[in-house]
Amino acid sequence: MHTRYPFAGIVGQEQMKKALILNVINPKIGGVLIRGEKGTAKSTGVRALIDLLPDNRVVDLPVGATEDRVVGTLDIEHALKNGEKKFEPGILAKAHNNLLYVDEVNLLDDHIVDILLDVAAMGVNVVEREGVSYSHPSKFILVGTMNPEEGDLRPQLLDRFGMTIDVKGENSVEKRVEVIKRRLAFEANPETFIQQFKEEHKQIVLQIKEAQKLLPKVKISDKMLELTAEITLDLGVDGHRADITMIKVASTIAAYENVDEVQREHILEAAELVLPHRMRRLPFDDGCLSASALDKWLEEKVC
Amino acid sequence: MHTRYPFAGIVGQEQMKKALILNVINPKIGGVLIRGEKGTAKSTGVRALIDLLPDNRVVDLPVGATEDRVVGTLDIEHALKNGEKKFEPGILAKAHNNLLYVDEVNLLDDHIVDILLDVAAMGVNVVEREGVSYSHPSKFILVGTMNPEEGDLRPQLLDRFGMTIDVKGENSVEKRVEVIKRRLAFEANPETFIQQFKEEHKQIVLQIKEAQKLLPKVKISDKMLELTAEITLDLGVDGHRADITMIKVASTIAAYENVDEVQREHILEAAELVLPHRMRRLPFDDGCLSASALDKWLEEKVC
Amino acid sequence: MHTRYPFAGIVGQEQMKKALILNVINPKIGGVLIRGEKGTAKSTGVRALIDLLPDNRVVDLPVGATEDRVVGTLDIEHALKNGEKKFEPGILAKAHNNLLYVDEVNLLDDHIVDILLDVAAMGVNVVEREGVSYSHPSKFILVGTMNPEEGDLRPQLLDRFGMTIDVKGENSVEKRVEVIKRRLAFEANPETFIQQFKEEHKQIVLQIKEAQKLLPKVKISDKMLELTAEITLDLGVDGHRADITMIKVASTIAAYENVDEVQREHILEAAELVLPHRMRRLPFDDGCLSASALDKWLEEKVC
Amino acid sequence: MHTRYPFAGIVGQEQMKKALILNVINPKIGGVLIRGEKGTAKSTGVRALIDLLPDNRVVDLPVGATEDRVVGTLDIEHALKNGEKKFEPGILAKAHNNLLYVDEVNLLDDHIVDILLDVAAMGVNVVEREGVSYSHPSKFILVGTMNPEEGDLRPQLLDRFGMTIDVKGENSVEKRVEVIKRRLAFEANPETFIQQFKEEHKQIVLQIKEAQKLLPKVKISDKMLELTAEITLDLGVDGHRADITMIKVASTIAAYENVDEVQREHILEAAELVLPHRMRRLPFDDGCLSASALDKWLEEKVC
Amino acid sequence: MHTRYPFAGIVGQEQMKKALILNVINPKIGGVLIRGEKGTAKSTGVRALIDLLPDNRVVDLPVGATEDRVVGTLDIEHALKNGEKKFEPGILAKAHNNLLYVDEVNLLDDHIVDILLDVAAMGVNVVEREGVSYSHPSKFILVGTMNPEEGDLRPQLLDRFGMTIDVKGENSVEKRVEVIKRRLAFEANPETFIQQFKEEHKQIVLQIKEAQKLLPKVKISDKMLELTAEITLDLGVDGHRADITMIKVASTIAAYENVDEVQREHILEAAELVLPHRMRRLPFDDGCLSASALDKWLEEKVC
Amino acid sequence: MHTRYPFAGIVGQEQMKKALILNVINPKIGGVLIRGEKGTAKSTGVRALIDLLPDNRVVDLPVGATEDRVVGTLDIEHALKNGEKKFEPGILAKAHNNLLYVDEVNLLDDHIVDILLDVAAMGVNVVEREGVSYSHPSKFILVGTMNPEEGDLRPQLLDRFGMTIDVKGENSVEKRVEVIKRRLAFEANPETFIQQFKEEHKQIVLQIKEAQKLLPKVKISDKMLELTAEITLDLGVDGHRADITMIKVASTIAAYENVDEVQREHILEAAELVLPHRMRRLPFDDGCLSASALDKWLEEKVC
Repeated sequence: MHTRYPFAGIVGQEQMKKALILNVINPKIGGVLIRGEKGTAKSTGVRALIDLLPDNRVVDLPVGATEDRVVGTLDIEHALKNGEKKFEPGILAKAHNNLLYVDEVNLLDDHIVDILLDVAAMGVNVVEREGVSYSHPSKFILVGTMNPEEGDLRPQLLDRFGMTIDVKGENSVEKRVEVIKRRLAFEANPETFIQQFKEEHKQIVLQIKEAQKLLPKVKISDKMLELTAEITLDLGVDGHRADITMIKVASTIAAYENVDEVQREHILEAAELVLPHRMRRLPFDDGCLSASALDKWLEEKVC
Repeated sequence: MHTRYPFAGIVGQEQMKKALILNVINPKIGGVLIRGEKGTAKSTGVRALIDLLPDNRVVDLPVGATEDRVVGTLDIEHALKNGEKKFEPGILAKAHNNLLYVDEVNLLDDHIVDILLDVAAMGVNVVEREGVSYSHPSKFILVGTMNPEEGDLRPQLLDRFGMTIDVKGENSVEKRVEVIKRRLAFEANPETFIQQFKEEHKQIVLQIKEAQKLLPKVKISDKMLELTAEITLDLGVDGHRADITMIKVASTIAAYENVDEVQREHILEAAELVLPHRMRRLPFDDGCLSASALDKWLEEKVC
Repeated sequence: MHTRYPFAGIVGQEQMKKALILNVINPKIGGVLIRGEKGTAKSTGVRALIDLLPDNRVVDLPVGATEDRVVGTLDIEHALKNGEKKFEPGILAKAHNNLLYVDEVNLLDDHIVDILLDVAAMGVNVVEREGVSYSHPSKFILVGTMNPEEGDLRPQLLDRFGMTIDVKGENSVEKRVEVIKRRLAFEANPETFIQQFKEEHKQIVLQIKEAQKLLPKVKISDKMLELTAEITLDLGVDGHRADITMIKVASTIAAYENVDEVQREHILEAAELVLPHRMRRLPFDDGCLSASALDKWLEEKVC
Repeated sequence: MHTRYPFAGIVGQEQMKKALILNVINPKIGGVLIRGEKGTAKSTGVRALIDLLPDNRVVDLPVGATEDRVVGTLDIEHALKNGEKKFEPGILAKAHNNLLYVDEVNLLDDHIVDILLDVAAMGVNVVEREGVSYSHPSKFILVGTMNPEEGDLRPQLLDRFGMTIDVKGENSVEKRVEVIKRRLAFEANPETFIQQFKEEHKQIVLQIKEAQKLLPKVKISDKMLELTAEITLDLGVDGHRADITMIKVASTIAAYENVDEVQREHILEAAELVLPHRMRRLPFDDGCLSASALDKWLEEKVC
Repeated sequence: MHTRYPFAGIVGQEQMKKALILNVINPKIGGVLIRGEKGTAKSTGVRALIDLLPDNRVVDLPVGATEDRVVGTLDIEHALKNGEKKFEPGILAKAHNNLLYVDEVNLLDDHIVDILLDVAAMGVNVVEREGVSYSHPSKFILVGTMNPEEGDLRPQLLDRFGMTIDVKGENSVEKRVEVIKRRLAFEANPETFIQQFKEEHKQIVLQIKEAQKLLPKVKISDKMLELTAEITLDLGVDGHRADITMIKVASTIAAYENVDEVQREHILEAAELVLPHRMRRLPFDDGCLSASALDKWLEEKVC
Repeated sequence: MHTRYPFAGIVGQEQMKKALILNVINPKIGGVLIRGEKGTAKSTGVRALIDLLPDNRVVDLPVGATEDRVVGTLDIEHALKNGEKKFEPGILAKAHNNLLYVDEVNLLDDHIVDILLDVAAMGVNVVEREGVSYSHPSKFILVGTMNPEEGDLRPQLLDRFGMTIDVKGENSVEKRVEVIKRRLAFEANPETFIQQFKEEHKQIVLQIKEAQKLLPKVKISDKMLELTAEITLDLGVDGHRADITMIKVASTIAAYENVDEVQREHILEAAELVLPHRMRRLPFDDGCLSASALDKWLEEKVC
């Protein structure tokens, strides 16, 4: 049933699409949180991403999942048949080395969030329940989507996402009409619609492969590292995770642009994706951290 | 026991009846929420709808349903007999490709609402509980009735209904007397009463069939798409779901009126059904979005 | 153990006694809620009613009843013996076509109230729990008693009662003395006491039977229907249930008075029984809707 | 282990002792609630009462009792052995025709209180849980003790106690010294101590027997009934339960005083025991309803 | 593993040590509550007490204890093996005639506190749960320790402790240094350390034995009883438990001081231990009830 | 899988590293709580510590651990096979004589915290649940990490940590760049990276061993003990635990510095690690207790 709406067919939402592609090129970026009002292509985008992944599976964490299925539990079938305890792995085991997708991530039960934070911090899932004592590695890339109207995320969980994107509905009549047309066309005949974007799809897949090849060769000068540290210091970002993620994102952007050394603009673009959800207060009047505003601010403050 | 009050026998409540019929003609509209004070014909209307449905079943989601019955669970009978786990589907499986009806939808447990939202967003029910890991498609049309006195719905759930209708008791003495007379007549002799509306009933069924035939041929000009986008942009509606639903509703209205191209008045009528529950604040003083008010507002704003 | 306090022996409380009798004559009236301070003959009245019922059983819904017993559940005995699932009906099944009595109705668990509302609205009990999927008709007459000191009822549940009665202790010394005397006499020798009221009891039973015979023949003029609609419209009562119930109550009063056509005073008396709990605010200064006040108000407003 | 502190050995607390004795003479009075600060002889008094009861057992309702033990439940032993359901009665079954004693009655779980009220109102325990449907008579005399510091009782539960007593520690040095002496003597040698009060004990038992013989012959004039009704009417007491209990208490006082007709002072003394917890606000400045204050007030108001 | 810190080795904390010793001499005093900031020798003191007890066991009530273990429960092992119900006693059974120690007593679950109060009041544990109906005597001496920073005790529970002690860290440099030195010495070599206090330990044990012999012979004059009653009356202490405990404590102090008649100073010292937690407001400005302040106050007030 | 980030490779965070090393040298110090914003090397540091421990295991207490796994429970496997009860030890048994590590310690369930406090205070885990009565020693060193943004710890739990450290991200560009470089290098090739710090690692292990040898010989003069007592007295620290821990920490610092007698500066450094979380209010304006501020304050106050 290959009738997922194609990634290439999404109208606009450039930043979301780029963030998702950067994660495919370089899973070490550490996932992305997509926040936006209802009816924007949030989950459509994440679902469409699957077709761009060569070997990365997506594991769903449904909001109704019980704790035993998340962390794993005693295998009752085995216990009844053989009279001995055996651990039955849960979602956190499946998620190891994969993408863990939580739709409506802000509706997750607080207790499940605590477990997620604990496991994400240690990279290991330690299970101590129902007479079972077990542990296994669990390193995953968190991808979440949420509608902020339904409630916020706790800062600790926010920090577990490498990047954050805020999406809105398109605000030009032309693009909105295009969204309607494509949706109606896709619903009327999915196969034909997917076929229309086949070429564009191949192009994206190729670009990702080439970026993955170039990525290990991308150079980062000390000047760029210093620029990164200056930005996070001046903006009062907590800890060092933001610095490290910014460098990873910037390198991946460079590779995606087929450039073999990280440039100032790559750092600035990475800052837009990595910093907003990690600052307590934004230094800009309108609460909006755009590349140009950041650029101007850096010229005054740092350079 | 075919003694349901007949759809054709409902006095007044024209908008509710039309919304329900439009959904029968075109299930892709995505369901309807009927809000109204107690003692209006809300659930009578939904029940009566069953007789108009050729092949669409109605699946009830009672407010007391437990999570295991909603999402499905381990088949204990099978487990006890055969010693192996088997998934037993729940209401969300039965609801696939059908109408899912929730009476008193605002009394639904918050946790069940979260699951409903998650499944409605993905079109898939992913079950991870009691040692069971399972998933199946679950695309359904939500029909809900509620009395706003008992509490509101969360915006995310509201958005899952294609259209919203507010019903009130009739406010002319003549119609109220007619309501009493018909109810007493129906209670006194249901069979005779249903017989009286047989002709009218056949007429509606016929009209629905013809509208269904015409629907795929209904044309939508770019001008109508632009008008739709202008309306939602100017009214500050979130996302794109409203636009797409408006076009679907407008096409269905056209088909129901036996017109083969969507007209301006179809768009305006669709807006009345699709937009009210998706706007945060209404731009009209009396909080009432009528066709004429919308028309006047558009003339000033858009045209 | 036929030592229930006899209905005929209750001192005063005329409106309560009449409301209960009207329900026996015409079960379609839809039950009654009796509100009153502690130590009035509320539950004595309902219990005594049983002796007036020819074929209607009274089913008790105790406040401590668990959800599984209310809606029904899996028959564990059958499951253990035969290894297959069988539905075991609950109180809502027993209540079908009967009187469902809830003493201290305002102490009912909110969750049980939600189920009651859902079932009362649909006339069907849909069970989806513990791997059981089942439904059966459940149409019942709700009779409830409550002390308002212990908390109010939700408006939606209030509306499920056809009539509401407010009872108070007698406020003349003579009647209070009579209450004490009869109670002491009943406790001293129940059999003798019941014997004393045997004739009066037979008289009531006879009157009920004759009223039941006359009832289908009671005529209702359009003028009376219009008066009903005018009253509910002017008083701003929600929906149409009040209108329909008023007509049923008025007809039953007429039959009880051995009159074959509904009169203006029957409508007014019915209004006193049917409307008070359905209006949000009372249009009378003292919050008291008496027949004379209603009459005066109608003369000014309607006639 | 007959080492209960003897009833006759309690220093002071005359009203409490009288109320308890009146209940033994005439169980129809309907129990008593003893409120008082910690370290007064509340539970000592109730425990000591057992020795005065010829055939009335005392059944304890511990605050930690679970709902299944209070109302009764499925007999699991029987079910496992015989594969069929059998009802196993609970505390409410044992309490039938007995004294039900709740120490720390204000610590009772709200849910258990609801059940108690429901059963007390109906005189029947209707059980609908765990696949069990059962009912049995449950008429009991409630005796409760409580420390008001730990919280109040709900008015509905208060009303279920025939009488209420407020006890305080003795406030003369002589009596306090006597309390210490007796307690130390009892703890040092219970048998000797009990022996010392044997004569006094026999005297009380004899007096109770004679009062029980006289009680059915005690006459109540209409004037006394009217006085009772005037008092409750003027004090604005809810319902009729207070009137009936006052007459019963007054008759029992008369019998205890070996008088064969109820006198004005018996009514006044009964009022002190029966009314305080049934009035919403006390008409006396110091919130204290003493016989003399009541007498004076009646002279002004009634006579 | 006899490496408990020795009672004799505790630096300072004289009042706590005396209170504990008095309880060993005379268990009828009824236990002690030790309140104090963290890091004072509270639980060290109670633990060390065990070595002073000849035949009195200490039973621990851990804060995490479940209700079934506190009150006792069905013996499942027995039920499975023999198919019949057997009561398995809990902590309250073990505690009978023993010391029941609750560390962090203010962290006890409210529900467990209710049960403790109920049992302490009756001296009997009545169990009504899981189809088990059982009762056994449960008279125990409550010893509790708590840090008031973590929350207060309910007055009813406070009253169940015979005495209350407030401990603080030592506030002279010399004593604090001594505390450090001893602790380091004990941790470095427990056996040697305990050996150092062996003589002092024997001395205390001997003194306790002699006091126990003398105790039954200690005389209490009426004047002392009156002084006790005057103090509690003037201080407005609830009930009589304080009076009785004061006399018991005073006698025990006399015995401990090898005096065969209770003196005025024994009463005053007992008052300091018994009264503070039983008064609602302290009559002294600094909220501190010292022997001298009490003495002065009595001279003015009583003598 | 020896790819833990090496302890020697952590940039900066000197106080945290020292506190962890001091605990390895002398486990009697009693653990450490590391508080800090997200993305600082908190859990990296604790994990890296494992390589420095010769024979001390680290036991994890995950925040999702259920009470039965923390305190231990009935061994169901054994019960089913052999029909008799056997205790199955939990985390508190494994933690005996080991390091108990709680990541996100402030997210621990309140009930688990109560149990932890109870066990930490007694050094014994007393289990009373599910028909199991059992106890075993449980003395452990608590190491916790937490982000204060997610909530505070209760004072009683704070006191159970020997020392507290507050970590922040580095605030010089040079160090931040170094952090990024090392992290990227470690992620690119863990083996090579660890190799680079092998020499430094051996040096730390050697220094720890020598300090452990010297520790029992470190002398503490009375003057130093007095200085300790003066500091805690003047700062108003609760109890004596702080004094004792300060001396232990100071001795360990001396041993680590290869000095055989505790010096004034060792006491001061110990004060910085031991006191901050034990004072209610800090006597310094900026709420910061640095060695120099403490030194200055002591000169004015004590010397």
